[in-house]
Amino acid sequence: MLEKTTRMNYLYDFYQSLLTPKQRSYMSLYYLDDYSLGEIADEYDVSRQAVYDNIKRTEAMLEEYEEKLLLLQKFQERSKLIASMKDLLKDNPELNNVMLSMIAELEKLD
Amino acid sequence: MLEKTTRMNYLYDFYQSLLTPKQRSYMSLYYLDDYSLGEIADEYDVSRQAVYDNIKRTEAMLEEYEEKLLLLQKFQERSKLIASMKDLLKDNPELNNVMLSMIAELEKLD
Repeated sequence: MLEKTTRMNYLYDFYQSLLTPKQRSYMSLYYLDDYSLGEIADEYDVSRQAVYDNIKRTEAMLEEYEEKLLLLQKFQERSKLIASMKDLLKDNPELNNVMLSMIAELEKLD
Repeated sequence: MLEKTTRMNYLYDFYQSLLTPKQRSYMSLYYLDDYSLGEIADEYDVSRQAVYDNIKRTEAMLEEYEEKLLLLQKFQERSKLIASMKDLLKDNPELNNVMLSMIAELEKLD
């Protein structure tokens, strides 16, 4: 499991299009721009608690989307495969069989 | 653009986890098992119009998810790249540069 902030950044990246504009604003200030809850509350003229609740709900939604669609998990699996493919290509010109089996793995992820 | 039924089958495949159980049942009977609207209506003891409306709404939702997340589009792009990689591997052992540029394309899709 990734460290929480890193994981939320990734999940936000994959699923932000499914959030409301307000959810996107709060999440992006909190996780990307490193605002505190109090600073976001001041910016939007709402209570710190309201910002906190909204962000907690959004985090839960992002985890639910990931549970259903696995975009982050598949991205991580593809990234590993691609890194291995690159390593192989660097070191070894005779790699048809290995390459083919990795490509087959890649296909299974879709 | 794919033919409508094929496209709906794909979209259903990618986004079914985001639908309600009833939406999943209707869509799966209509698109996968080729039931008519009337047959689904009989099965669930509702009007043909209710089934029709539900399916139309679900189709629109699937298109909206695709507009936001592009899972089908990216799948199609990855499939093309993977097919090209396989062809290259079959025909040519000296393909490091071409392979590396295709892998770079693959990475851009994530």
